[in-house]
Amino acid sequence: MALHVTSEQRLDDGVLERRFDLGEIPGILWTPASASASAPVPLILLGHPPLGLSRMYPRLAGRARQAAAHGFAAATIELPGSGDRPRWPAIEQARADLRRTMQAGEPVGDETVDALILPLVERSVPEWRSALDALLALPGIGGPVGYSGGVISLGIRLAVTEPRIAAAGLFAGSLVPRAVFEEARQVTVPLHVLLQWDDEGNDRQAALDLFDAFGSKDKSLHAHMGGHTGVPGSAGEDAVQFFARHLK
Amino acid sequence: MALHVTSEQRLDDGVLERRFDLGEIPGILWTPASASASAPVPLILLGHPPLGLSRMYPRLAGRARQAAAHGFAAATIELPGSGDRPRWPAIEQARADLRRTMQAGEPVGDETVDALILPLVERSVPEWRSALDALLALPGIGGPVGYSGGVISLGIRLAVTEPRIAAAGLFAGSLVPRAVFEEARQVTVPLHVLLQWDDEGNDRQAALDLFDAFGSKDKSLHAHMGGHTGVPGSAGEDAVQFFARHLK
Repeated sequence: MALHVTSEQRLDDGVLERRFDLGEIPGILWTPASASASAPVPLILLGHPPLGLSRMYPRLAGRARQAAAHGFAAATIELPGSGDRPRWPAIEQARADLRRTMQAGEPVGDETVDALILPLVERSVPEWRSALDALLALPGIGGPVGYSGGVISLGIRLAVTEPRIAAAGLFAGSLVPRAVFEEARQVTVPLHVLLQWDDEGNDRQAALDLFDAFGSKDKSLHAHMGGHTGVPGSAGEDAVQFFARHLK
Repeated sequence: MALHVTSEQRLDDGVLERRFDLGEIPGILWTPASASASAPVPLILLGHPPLGLSRMYPRLAGRARQAAAHGFAAATIELPGSGDRPRWPAIEQARADLRRTMQAGEPVGDETVDALILPLVERSVPEWRSALDALLALPGIGGPVGYSGGVISLGIRLAVTEPRIAAAGLFAGSLVPRAVFEEARQVTVPLHVLLQWDDEGNDRQAALDLFDAFGSKDKSLHAHMGGHTGVPGSAGEDAVQFFARHLK
């Protein structure tokens, strides 16, 4: 699938931000000022929660600029059913079920998690792989490739199925289908895992169990105080340092 | 108590290494080439296990040079009963008891931990505070002060009782007396806690419980793969970055 750039702007730190369409899927690519056809830079795929690219833009652009400061390109695409993409009633239904369960303070059952996460992972993984094909074909973008953040089940499936991903920075969550938890044992790339110690939406012990299950010999867990959105700025810098050690 | 420098040498990276005696207690001070009476640098106290300074020297010097590269002085003193200091039969007995218990695969009881750790903490804390008095009186050494690594119970007691300590990097252990565990709730300085995920000498769950108990609002846990001595080099760099954020 071809990637069509729809707009581009130069940010104040010299980073080039390009909006693109990959078929029907919108995306954004950021490249450091230093990137050129003769000096291609490694790429970090930026994962995000399914809240729509425009809502996530400030945080994504911040992460991309941090990555660019260390010489990385960064890119992301819209998730199915989010943002300007067609609505996906089954996922909306599953999300409403999850919200109701959590608000009632009831335990979240396997069926609820499977209904929400499995279709999202199954549809997203081929899209992110197509995006990778198209991005790596651009002048100035080279390997190796890292995956960072977002829906952890998508990160796990990508790390297992996409051999071009050489390292992953994941955000520990507990809404992981049993089938994906088992796949975590097959992950072998270096991992840098963030955990929010008092995450209101994720169970701490389940997140620790998932970290324990990863098959990677080189994995580390970085837990910070606070809720889901309370990740300190220094944690982002540590994550970029992780990629700098493994993608260069 | 006065500090007497007994020898000094300039290391290849310009760091000045001074051996000293504080009364009967040997110690080592490292200062970056940049330190001077008119430009005093912050100080990091380097904790270590009770194996003797000469055995620990390579690792301590490595940590000190890493700290000096970021503009910190670093210092340490010999623990009571270790190295060239007079033997301490009660502690040796307690250590032999612990070793026997662990080799037999039996659970380590509170009494064993108390017998080993409490006397060490009670004798060491006033010594480290005296060392701090003497070190901060030297030209070129200023505050604020950080404490890093070593016997975690000593770090906890120091963080609670010594107001000049502004941040601490601790190595999570499970051999923590119940009384010291309770003191952990009173720790309020920023904390950077390292945990070895498969530490053969420490119980993981007990270490996670201790991390949870710390009263500090700003605390983070960094878990790496491997056994007790398998801390990766990148973890040391992350710890120095933590001190750079909090001691400058």
